[in-house]
Amino acid sequence: MQLEQTLKNPYAYDYQLLIKHLFNAPIAYNPKQEIVYRFDQRFSYETFKKRVHQLAHMLSTMGIKAGDTVAVMDYDSHRYLECYFAVPMIGAVLHTINIRLSPEQILYTINHAEDDLILAHSDFLPILEQIKGRLEVDSFVLLQDEAMALKTSLHVKGEYETLLAQQPSVFAFPDLNENTRATTFYTTGTTGLPKGVYFTHRQLVLHTLGVLSTLGTAPHQGNFHQNDVYMPITPMFHVHAWGLPYVATMLGVKQVYPGRYIPDLLLELIAKENVTFSHCVPTIMHMLFNSPKINEVDLRGWKVIIGGAALPKAMCQEALQRGIDMFTGYGMSETCPILSLAQLTPEMLELSNEEQSDIRIKTGRSMGLVEMEIVDEQMQPLPHDGKSTGEIVVRSPWLTQGYFKDQKNSELLWAGGYLHTGDVAYMDEKGYVKITDRVKDIIKVGGEWVSSLELEDIIHQHPSVKEVAVIGVEDEKWGERPLALVVCDNLKPISEKELLSHAKEFIKKGIMAREGMLLKILFVSSIDKTSVGKIDKKSLRQKYTL
Amino acid sequence: MQLEQTLKNPYAYDYQLLIKHLFNAPIAYNPKQEIVYRFDQRFSYETFKKRVHQLAHMLSTMGIKAGDTVAVMDYDSHRYLECYFAVPMIGAVLHTINIRLSPEQILYTINHAEDDLILAHSDFLPILEQIKGRLEVDSFVLLQDEAMALKTSLHVKGEYETLLAQQPSVFAFPDLNENTRATTFYTTGTTGLPKGVYFTHRQLVLHTLGVLSTLGTAPHQGNFHQNDVYMPITPMFHVHAWGLPYVATMLGVKQVYPGRYIPDLLLELIAKENVTFSHCVPTIMHMLFNSPKINEVDLRGWKVIIGGAALPKAMCQEALQRGIDMFTGYGMSETCPILSLAQLTPEMLELSNEEQSDIRIKTGRSMGLVEMEIVDEQMQPLPHDGKSTGEIVVRSPWLTQGYFKDQKNSELLWAGGYLHTGDVAYMDEKGYVKITDRVKDIIKVGGEWVSSLELEDIIHQHPSVKEVAVIGVEDEKWGERPLALVVCDNLKPISEKELLSHAKEFIKKGIMAREGMLLKILFVSSIDKTSVGKIDKKSLRQKYTL
Repeated sequence: MQLEQTLKNPYAYDYQLLIKHLFNAPIAYNPKQEIVYRFDQRFSYETFKKRVHQLAHMLSTMGIKAGDTVAVMDYDSHRYLECYFAVPMIGAVLHTINIRLSPEQILYTINHAEDDLILAHSDFLPILEQIKGRLEVDSFVLLQDEAMALKTSLHVKGEYETLLAQQPSVFAFPDLNENTRATTFYTTGTTGLPKGVYFTHRQLVLHTLGVLSTLGTAPHQGNFHQNDVYMPITPMFHVHAWGLPYVATMLGVKQVYPGRYIPDLLLELIAKENVTFSHCVPTIMHMLFNSPKINEVDLRGWKVIIGGAALPKAMCQEALQRGIDMFTGYGMSETCPILSLAQLTPEMLELSNEEQSDIRIKTGRSMGLVEMEIVDEQMQPLPHDGKSTGEIVVRSPWLTQGYFKDQKNSELLWAGGYLHTGDVAYMDEKGYVKITDRVKDIIKVGGEWVSSLELEDIIHQHPSVKEVAVIGVEDEKWGERPLALVVCDNLKPISEKELLSHAKEFIKKGIMAREGMLLKILFVSSIDKTSVGKIDKKSLRQKYTL
Repeated sequence: MQLEQTLKNPYAYDYQLLIKHLFNAPIAYNPKQEIVYRFDQRFSYETFKKRVHQLAHMLSTMGIKAGDTVAVMDYDSHRYLECYFAVPMIGAVLHTINIRLSPEQILYTINHAEDDLILAHSDFLPILEQIKGRLEVDSFVLLQDEAMALKTSLHVKGEYETLLAQQPSVFAFPDLNENTRATTFYTTGTTGLPKGVYFTHRQLVLHTLGVLSTLGTAPHQGNFHQNDVYMPITPMFHVHAWGLPYVATMLGVKQVYPGRYIPDLLLELIAKENVTFSHCVPTIMHMLFNSPKINEVDLRGWKVIIGGAALPKAMCQEALQRGIDMFTGYGMSETCPILSLAQLTPEMLELSNEEQSDIRIKTGRSMGLVEMEIVDEQMQPLPHDGKSTGEIVVRSPWLTQGYFKDQKNSELLWAGGYLHTGDVAYMDEKGYVKITDRVKDIIKVGGEWVSSLELEDIIHQHPSVKEVAVIGVEDEKWGERPLALVVCDNLKPISEKELLSHAKEFIKKGIMAREGMLLKILFVSSIDKTSVGKIDKKSLRQKYTL
């Protein structure tokens, strides 16, 4: 555009969307606001600012420069928050290592990401020592909760707090191009090697503004405002703890970091620090609800976004009974992550807890600037009628450009110009999405889609069923048909016929497509799992045929 | 950056920050939400969407294409809102003509902006007819509130509603570069020709997100949320009605457009449509407060941002007594416009109405992503101590790149890499800014800055003073010294000596710099004004010497 070129004024400041711009104002306006780490540390935003500047100096003195990669292995901590800012703000890339991976996978991600320095909590030194012969990085900083001498064969440059204390407190953060990579981390599918995703300064700033615009403007429910107290309960190594540490910092709220997740400690922190806003996965929430301590803590007014896995309705109802404002958030590693939130309209808040739960457990409505479509296999958008089922594809300014050094999968991810979530869902006329399955687990019976998850859910409701996995197996007539692998409760034996008729009762009621009637059942003693404990359907499909 | 180039995936959707992305989601989720125009028109967001698509078709059939400029002369209306979206969404530039300028100035801005088409309300045809011989555009669309035959010598292509009805209802809006110019309009200084500013899609989207992030997340006061009802009371031709029609649309709230401002009609609309969120200038608010109708309307809960001129404390107190949540917003034509808001912290809300008013009338705290500094004449930042006074300079992603086709003033605007507001202010330790004068009106006495506005305020408090203007005049010893031009109330005569001692009393109390003591007073019969009714200090400085 010729005209627009002439309108560019070389004297005007070229304002790029940089993480440093999120950082300054809230600290200037809330200098006394607190950042808390367990019961161990407590300091002001003013100190936080100083520490981020000191960390930048520390990294620089170690030779870290723009374009380098700095990895972190830590629990949720104030140190991690400092890295969220200091590392990208000097132009380096923050690699948040998934500490739950196997040592072999950790080794792979460190070398693949080309890490130049690793900041590691003392708990993870044994893992690093185990793989150090094959590590391409040989530079470490030790993170410790208590100062104590440690013996290690790694080249440790020093301990974080000691090194930080030696640094000057003002660093001149450069102006970067907003498309500079800021973060990277690895997704763990059920098969294959971990794949690296990456996000730029621009993407993280826009995600922050998008989340604030959606969570902030909700008038009655599920909102995040300047007087909240924030504590993450999804790990900081995973998709920037949903990006919420950036949001919380920009809001200038009190932030509480709980370290390693210990249910009783989490409950104590919620009570003592008056935590009002969190995000969590169902597994951890289940542990909290089962802790005897839960009845000693007043959880009324606690807002919790649940993600990572479907929010079970029973959990949502229990939460509502306890006065917790619980609702679903949806996203994935590839999406920064937040795409949609199951916030309720004022009319919905008039409904009973049970009826509300049916909405709160949905995948939710897309946030501002997120364009979400349900498409068929030809990428044609399906109607928003609450029943037409297809894959969720998205566009938004905060989606990964692709997988790091993996052109083939990057192309597949963006086939047809939309990011493919791999999730199967329908959307209703109000824009609420409900996921029914993963694309790769859907069973295609005579051209119709049958959800393996829905069938599992139905079968699981029989009291004799301990575990179940439903897969599609080849069928001459139908193309595919569903096969349920069932682990029975030995104390409550059941015949194949009985279980089939249980399932067919549900199907007859119209709970799912009638093609589900073609279900076969196979009793097994155990079901294959992946390293992270998910059902390994790929392995099951290879193992079982009809 | 070599590395970053290789990370760009050509298959990924290149999401640009475009106005069309603000437009779709809220309409999809709130199809029945209303847009209201006076008592004349009322339609749903669904219809609004259709009309924007039809308007795009209408403009296209008239030959308007990307890069062209479409001007509008209208009061605040649903039609204007449609232009806010349709014109930039086809890649054209929306020129919002200031209908309060003189015909000569209007002529200048139309030709300078290179308008290709003008959409004009029938009330403004006489102005256009008067200047048509010198207009470089000869293509008009008529906007009418009631259909009636009109005689005009202009080349009118038709009437808006009639033309719209003929168009198809789906337009394929293109993907544009986010740096495409979306809007332009002209500022009117106290002297010289109007200067054109311009804003891109990216800037308007970021301004919208920034405003939502700041107004949305305020927990108790001055917030804008999804259940509000919005009505502008600052004109849509002026800085996009502060950008709030975009914000309101993205929020999906009910919007009320009041046409020409008639105090009683405004009050009726507030009552009938339950308006809860507005922005206004002190002059119009004064008219509302003086309308006999005001006592018939319950204004409790009405949130009003005041800008354009300083919010008088008495007005703020009256508003609070009526239950109106009134506070200052600050910005200018060059800044999109919002830079800061005088929102209150929870502690401040505990204060008395009078104490609160002192905060609410301040210039406020800068929004997220707005970097605001108070600098001295060498562009060195001054401390935030509530007294160090200098010019406000800013950086933010939504500031005009410069003045349209005016390189010299563009350079001056951005001297030193910051946008110069020309406002003189101090900032306190909590980040609240208070403007004390305009840079060009400040009086430099022996190196110290004396605020002409503060001196005027002091002198004005004497009951004998009807009008006052303070200017700096040359002085051999001090460089400059203050001269007050005073129009006296004939019924309350006062001597120069008496008035001087009144002023000096205040100065002695420490209300202003002691250099104010060098004040001289001159009684005059009238004070020069500009065409828009502001005191013409430039003319006064030429006219008066000591």
